[in-house]
Amino acid sequence: MSPTIGFIGLGIMGQPMALNLVKAGHRVTVFNRTRSRSEPLERAGARVAASPGEAARDADFTMIIVSDTAAVEEVVLGSDGILEALKPGAVVIDSSTISPAASRKFACHAAGKGARWLDAPVTGSKHGAEKGELTFMIGGDREALERAMPILKILGKKHIYCGTHGLGLAAKLAQNAIQATMVEVFCEGFVMAAKSGVPPQTMMEIIQSSLARASLTDFKAPFIFKGDFTPYFPLKLMHKDLELAMENAYAQGVPMPTAAVVKEVYGAAKAQGKGDLDYAAVITFLEELAGVQVRATAAGTG
Amino acid sequence: MSPTIGFIGLGIMGQPMALNLVKAGHRVTVFNRTRSRSEPLERAGARVAASPGEAARDADFTMIIVSDTAAVEEVVLGSDGILEALKPGAVVIDSSTISPAASRKFACHAAGKGARWLDAPVTGSKHGAEKGELTFMIGGDREALERAMPILKILGKKHIYCGTHGLGLAAKLAQNAIQATMVEVFCEGFVMAAKSGVPPQTMMEIIQSSLARASLTDFKAPFIFKGDFTPYFPLKLMHKDLELAMENAYAQGVPMPTAAVVKEVYGAAKAQGKGDLDYAAVITFLEELAGVQVRATAAGTG
Amino acid sequence: MSPTIGFIGLGIMGQPMALNLVKAGHRVTVFNRTRSRSEPLERAGARVAASPGEAARDADFTMIIVSDTAAVEEVVLGSDGILEALKPGAVVIDSSTISPAASRKFACHAAGKGARWLDAPVTGSKHGAEKGELTFMIGGDREALERAMPILKILGKKHIYCGTHGLGLAAKLAQNAIQATMVEVFCEGFVMAAKSGVPPQTMMEIIQSSLARASLTDFKAPFIFKGDFTPYFPLKLMHKDLELAMENAYAQGVPMPTAAVVKEVYGAAKAQGKGDLDYAAVITFLEELAGVQVRATAAGTG
Amino acid sequence: MSPTIGFIGLGIMGQPMALNLVKAGHRVTVFNRTRSRSEPLERAGARVAASPGEAARDADFTMIIVSDTAAVEEVVLGSDGILEALKPGAVVIDSSTISPAASRKFACHAAGKGARWLDAPVTGSKHGAEKGELTFMIGGDREALERAMPILKILGKKHIYCGTHGLGLAAKLAQNAIQATMVEVFCEGFVMAAKSGVPPQTMMEIIQSSLARASLTDFKAPFIFKGDFTPYFPLKLMHKDLELAMENAYAQGVPMPTAAVVKEVYGAAKAQGKGDLDYAAVITFLEELAGVQVRATAAGTG
Repeated sequence: MSPTIGFIGLGIMGQPMALNLVKAGHRVTVFNRTRSRSEPLERAGARVAASPGEAARDADFTMIIVSDTAAVEEVVLGSDGILEALKPGAVVIDSSTISPAASRKFACHAAGKGARWLDAPVTGSKHGAEKGELTFMIGGDREALERAMPILKILGKKHIYCGTHGLGLAAKLAQNAIQATMVEVFCEGFVMAAKSGVPPQTMMEIIQSSLARASLTDFKAPFIFKGDFTPYFPLKLMHKDLELAMENAYAQGVPMPTAAVVKEVYGAAKAQGKGDLDYAAVITFLEELAGVQVRATAAGTG
Repeated sequence: MSPTIGFIGLGIMGQPMALNLVKAGHRVTVFNRTRSRSEPLERAGARVAASPGEAARDADFTMIIVSDTAAVEEVVLGSDGILEALKPGAVVIDSSTISPAASRKFACHAAGKGARWLDAPVTGSKHGAEKGELTFMIGGDREALERAMPILKILGKKHIYCGTHGLGLAAKLAQNAIQATMVEVFCEGFVMAAKSGVPPQTMMEIIQSSLARASLTDFKAPFIFKGDFTPYFPLKLMHKDLELAMENAYAQGVPMPTAAVVKEVYGAAKAQGKGDLDYAAVITFLEELAGVQVRATAAGTG
Repeated sequence: MSPTIGFIGLGIMGQPMALNLVKAGHRVTVFNRTRSRSEPLERAGARVAASPGEAARDADFTMIIVSDTAAVEEVVLGSDGILEALKPGAVVIDSSTISPAASRKFACHAAGKGARWLDAPVTGSKHGAEKGELTFMIGGDREALERAMPILKILGKKHIYCGTHGLGLAAKLAQNAIQATMVEVFCEGFVMAAKSGVPPQTMMEIIQSSLARASLTDFKAPFIFKGDFTPYFPLKLMHKDLELAMENAYAQGVPMPTAAVVKEVYGAAKAQGKGDLDYAAVITFLEELAGVQVRATAAGTG
Repeated sequence: MSPTIGFIGLGIMGQPMALNLVKAGHRVTVFNRTRSRSEPLERAGARVAASPGEAARDADFTMIIVSDTAAVEEVVLGSDGILEALKPGAVVIDSSTISPAASRKFACHAAGKGARWLDAPVTGSKHGAEKGELTFMIGGDREALERAMPILKILGKKHIYCGTHGLGLAAKLAQNAIQATMVEVFCEGFVMAAKSGVPPQTMMEIIQSSLARASLTDFKAPFIFKGDFTPYFPLKLMHKDLELAMENAYAQGVPMPTAAVVKEVYGAAKAQGKGDLDYAAVITFLEELAGVQVRATAAGTG
């Protein structure tokens, strides 16, 4: 018989993920703080719980994908949280991007109940969530992962085992620190070139003729040149992930001087009210200081 | 009749470039401070001059590729420098990576003699120089560029016109600031992941499954994982280029907070005596602070 | 008749402050989350409330001094918070060091009840709190300040009016950013000098012979040279204040590149478990990276 | 009989220093690249040499105070430099602020000729030089220092022995890194406060009521509030000293993350053409980014 699944967090990523589990024939009980987001799931056949604990009660698997460490803490340890509801042998799959140290703590709590905890943050957009094409980076017990794999295969096409508890998160945070920096320094270079007088399209041709060519900046550049900052990944979440990356780096005694500064640049852009735009909007912070607009100079030569 | 070419600077890049011009049938007069490096050229049929001025005298084109701004200044304005030797209508092609502001000054001096100046820095390795497959970023007069193009086509396969004097250099420096940062933050991420416990190969699989994938880091990673820092591009030159990039950014009033910090990280590695290694050796500076070796953890899981 | 005072927060600073108000003959009702800290107050004649709201009910003045923005939010807007209890004309004096933006929000809430809000953060140690010798930096309404002055004079000897709501906090955060940086760069200089071979006492003699002499570093140096990091002001609180300073700087569009980096250095020391030591313990983070101990070299030459 | 002294470098500091030696009755032979600056010395009774070597020939002491490492190198090793002219037992006192590593190299060269080398950078203004009230920080041989002391006592009132070759410089650079940072972060704090709405005089009152009070900022503040940046110590020299401090820090493996960023802030101000103003003019760089003028808000409340 198909396993029972609790699913907590029906945001931009969570809703299509839960829907895919329902469509695959699983018995899913969902919970979301804002109840209205449960409705599409209910129509598709999911049960709707009134609390995280109710969603997790007697479930074989409980999936969590919420916004930050505090939200996971509330789901796990808050009033009617999942901790009391977990049955021995249950597996919790937490796809939230949170602090690795906090995640290890939750894993300990779960172990105290005879349950298993996997940190399993994802990359891939809403689109990837809808298509079941996410990439999972996974930390925790290999045996628990093997049991969870049939479910994870419904949701994603790539599942990378990183090691013990917290290492899925550590890997995800390292990756995001790299991505955030690639985009930010790309913006620095293009703003400097534009202010000097080099047209952005020319600069782009140079980048694309060189080893500096990257999928990420190939993808972001047209949006930057149009000034279209529709959030693919919101700047405030990138800033949050950089904070988590630095927290982990400091905890490990690892110097990340560049990522530390990049975090501050995103922080400054966020304080300007740009948190809900795509993180490529970080260029507008640099442009305002420089007194030049890459997109204007792009338009002028297009 | 084929034009006459003066060629000044027979370093790692200059020697094969000059050789290609000789092989293409041009009449080339070379000059290099260390005379012994002229010998292969002499055997191939070049004339050898005793001074920059002698190399440039009556030449239709004078090509320069030396190590830094001071070296170009010496070539141009030093004793028996090229400035006095340039004939009206001559074109100087400077492929050294130097300060854009200084380059504009040299262009003015050349104009005072009725000659033209192109800043034309290159990317591409020694290998690219040998094969005639360099990429040129070019600033200066379009008409001068058109006249120089037959020569530049012998040396490279891509010639990107960036705008007025100094913009070839501005573009090159923007590109190098981006490349230096991409490599450095890649190292930060991998050191953090390794110290946390994520094997480098796993981290690499994650990067390659993501938008963060880049030709540059695909190329550098195997060397980093082996600890092979044979200089493809020496760290001290990358540091110098970052200094020039910052000088240009400051002069333009452009903030480059991340590149500024990256410059200091390379500076610290250079001060440790790593200047002659490939710039990817910047990882060893981070590793020593973190107390972990990515290559050791890579070996352990290979 | 003497005014009635609600007093919320009986930590290291709050307890002696409340005691001074009781001793001055005021009718004081105290509240603290951990009830045991109320006992000395009760013995001295204060009433003890069961909630913030109860402490503030019908009080002419309500004083708050708690740990952070979230704690003030809980006191004001949480269950049985003070907002519902404030009578028209009451004055709230918040001496917590919190976000200026949040403080302005609380001031608005108070105004909606016909009450006034002063942000009034303090400097001065536990000792200053005991002696009634604190310095207050005050933002808000001048008229409200005049009414509160008799109370503030019991608690401190210096009261500096900074302007409208939030400006007492902005001034305090600017001051702390300056202090945090002075101490951190003093440590950088002494670590560099010590590693080079200059004895700390010699370096101190140089500083004291120069314009760089400062009360703050004169005070901290002997503790640093002994390695005595008994918390005068805990490192984790300095880190928190730097976070608030940067949040305010970003919100105002003000560049504070140096304070941003200093924040990260304290952050790194905090992540090493040094948060409860005095903030001068930041030197140990630098010493560990440098492989030298200023206090050891001080001892060696003492 | 009074010793003979060679004196090389008659800049803002050197000219009054040399004059004091002449007035004290010493036989002084001066050299300066720009000959006209020798005239006041000649009138006072000094001999004027045509080269550094001539000034140093047969001198018991040779004093150098020139602008940078390259200038000292020219004086020592350049054509008709002092190295060839030094007699055995001569003492060279170099008061230039230069690289400690280069200074150690010069000391070796001198030792090869049987002469001694002291690095003896100074603090104190032109005024201190005129009054003979400089502070010397001294590295090198104690015995050589004792011999030089009668001369150094004419020039300064404080002579701090720091240790072996280069340590006078290391100490001076540590001190300047501290001073540069104190002034810069003072500016950051005042710009942030002013943009928030706190009047500069109020902010100053807060600083002066606190441990953050420092002689340096007490001295600089009135100039900053008037916008008077007459050079007491030019910004470009402070930037140069920060570069030397970082070079030494990197060479010693010492992290100076804050000083590194401060160097970039001065570097950016210098690139804006502010190099010849006093280094307190760094505030104008921050003000322009923030869109506020501390001096304007100071005037408004004065």
